[in-house]
Amino acid sequence: MASVVQKYGGSAVTSPEQIRKIAERIIQSYNDRNDVVVVISARAGETNRLIEMAQEMCPRQTGSEYDLLISAGEQVSIGLLALCISSLGYKVRTYLGWQVPIITDSLHTRASIEYIDPAKIRADLNHGAIVLVAGFQGIDRSGTITTLGRGGGDTSAVALAHALGAEVCELYSDVDGIFTADPAICDDARKIEKISYDEMLELASQGARGVQIRAIEYAKKHNVTIHVRSAFTAERGTLVVKEHMPMEGVVVTGIVADKNEAKIAVLGVPDKPGSAAKILTGLADKDISVDMIVQNVGQDGLADITFSISKTDLEKAHQITTQIAKEVNAREVLADRNISKVSIVGLGMKNHAGVAARMFTALAYNNINIQMISTSEIKVSVAIEEKYTELAVRVLHEAFKVDQCSE
Amino acid sequence: MASVVQKYGGSAVTSPEQIRKIAERIIQSYNDRNDVVVVISARAGETNRLIEMAQEMCPRQTGSEYDLLISAGEQVSIGLLALCISSLGYKVRTYLGWQVPIITDSLHTRASIEYIDPAKIRADLNHGAIVLVAGFQGIDRSGTITTLGRGGGDTSAVALAHALGAEVCELYSDVDGIFTADPAICDDARKIEKISYDEMLELASQGARGVQIRAIEYAKKHNVTIHVRSAFTAERGTLVVKEHMPMEGVVVTGIVADKNEAKIAVLGVPDKPGSAAKILTGLADKDISVDMIVQNVGQDGLADITFSISKTDLEKAHQITTQIAKEVNAREVLADRNISKVSIVGLGMKNHAGVAARMFTALAYNNINIQMISTSEIKVSVAIEEKYTELAVRVLHEAFKVDQCSE
Repeated sequence: MASVVQKYGGSAVTSPEQIRKIAERIIQSYNDRNDVVVVISARAGETNRLIEMAQEMCPRQTGSEYDLLISAGEQVSIGLLALCISSLGYKVRTYLGWQVPIITDSLHTRASIEYIDPAKIRADLNHGAIVLVAGFQGIDRSGTITTLGRGGGDTSAVALAHALGAEVCELYSDVDGIFTADPAICDDARKIEKISYDEMLELASQGARGVQIRAIEYAKKHNVTIHVRSAFTAERGTLVVKEHMPMEGVVVTGIVADKNEAKIAVLGVPDKPGSAAKILTGLADKDISVDMIVQNVGQDGLADITFSISKTDLEKAHQITTQIAKEVNAREVLADRNISKVSIVGLGMKNHAGVAARMFTALAYNNINIQMISTSEIKVSVAIEEKYTELAVRVLHEAFKVDQCSE
Repeated sequence: MASVVQKYGGSAVTSPEQIRKIAERIIQSYNDRNDVVVVISARAGETNRLIEMAQEMCPRQTGSEYDLLISAGEQVSIGLLALCISSLGYKVRTYLGWQVPIITDSLHTRASIEYIDPAKIRADLNHGAIVLVAGFQGIDRSGTITTLGRGGGDTSAVALAHALGAEVCELYSDVDGIFTADPAICDDARKIEKISYDEMLELASQGARGVQIRAIEYAKKHNVTIHVRSAFTAERGTLVVKEHMPMEGVVVTGIVADKNEAKIAVLGVPDKPGSAAKILTGLADKDISVDMIVQNVGQDGLADITFSISKTDLEKAHQITTQIAKEVNAREVLADRNISKVSIVGLGMKNHAGVAARMFTALAYNNINIQMISTSEIKVSVAIEEKYTELAVRVLHEAFKVDQCSE
């Protein structure tokens, strides 16, 4: 049977008109003889409303009570959508996480899915029902409600597609698919027809919108085909698949920029073992992720340690770093909000030498100074001054001829 | 073990300050060495918000999707209260209806509780936890969420008290207890210390606030002691118990008025068998409850049929009755919004003749005309012109010396 799991984000179920549109779209898929399972998030703003209530009540709560509270939002969404589909004369069945059940571990607010029992949903599909499932939530083995963390609805959808052996997992949002670069920045940006899990992972990690990282990892592990597409057009979007080697000569699949980066430099650190570790451990203890790291040791035996973090963490990170800098007798700490990260991603890099060099040359030719670099097998990221972000994306898109179709 | 089930209404959990106050009250009960189980309703307005959403989506829906939607409110309340109690350093366990489980029949939006398994809650109490349970909701035997109808939280609390063998079920609200008459109308109104289930049932049926009728019926059936009391004072309220025969000479326990009454008179109905039945069946088919009914047959062989309904149903009832009146060749239909119902209730009536006569005399002496009458073994209700409501309550309170303590 040709079955499909569709996931709609919270922005698609905000108003009654939107819910009606989504309902019609779902019914159309159903009438095309697909077995349709739909995963819905909480209405946009609903989960934030619940989180605000919780914080007003008592800040910094993260246990099972918190998950109980914030999982109420999906119940409202699937209730409304079910009412609508049912009123249009179609048979509909709804499932909260515990009703499927979607079994997770017990790490509240960021639980991982361990097992999904597809039996009841399969029976409903066989009886001709459209099945709606609340995303983002599950239960642990003791029967307590858990949530999967922000964006967990994507993961719910991919995991359900795997459990049901669905042909494809369609992730609907307000973007048309994955682009070679942000079309708002780059006129030549082209929608990518197919992309590999690894490339998608790198793009998402470097700031591309469209799919949650954990959902891509899950899809990669279980070989679930993802279709990233728009809820507002019938056009095909981007397929995320296992293997997709680009044509000979195509090196870069996509370019992505992330302005949510900031930089901290610790200058004049006595070059003793453990100084860098002390700083990085201090940040990790406060749940601050460090992205790029550079360490230069001067001839005077003093090192400069520079690293990037997200802009939202800058203030806290600056405070912590200043404290530790004193302890390790560093000279000074500088913070800089005005940076961004631009990355090129492509499986083709594996087989092409000199990709980084070509990137740096193109940027240098346009007087864009590189402050930090990090690389993986299929990605090169650079930190640059924030004001050059859009220019850098256009320059690289041109340099690597990403606009030319790789299909 | 001295265990107590406490139920707090939705108006008690609206603001963070209120939730904190309730939390402190619960903790105080806990520290007094009670095993405490708390039933919470949705925050005031929350369920209405969800119902409005549903109606905007598609009016007149009442199935399982509707119950799924409107049961989201309690989840928010118990989540917030649990966060608060937990942040004050006390061990807390939460239960949604399905987690207890509270098993109901499958009559969505007005399900009845069939069975409650107390095992998990008992275990939590034995481990020193305060237990919070979402009121108003359950699941049927197929695992679908059900709701108990408006005010179902009272029934959840009484049923839990029964299942747990609790000493008492405390129903908290913003009233101090059950009064001999509305203190806003009658200066001499006195809080009743103890009242029987049957009296409480009559008072509630005739419009008294405080306890849901179905909860009283459940309590009566299973002999659960109810304590109706204020959430804002430490004073004792009113105990609702099995048997409570008043002292010799006390006839009336309470007086209650209901302004939500309206009257329809169908005049000149040919006195043929089935005419009255046709009208009443037509109303019942549209879910309109008829309260008092009077039929007079004149010498001309034409009957007048008069009945009372709730004011909110008047327009619909008028329309239906006019239609049927035509079919049975009645002369005309009159509708009257300006009536109210005043009732006297008391177990003492069983042993006292002439109670109704004494009531009618007192009203007549004050020029209050009686339009309709209905009686039961422990109640007499009269319909009067609405503007006399308060006067009638005061006159009857005085006439039956209800202000004099019956304890």
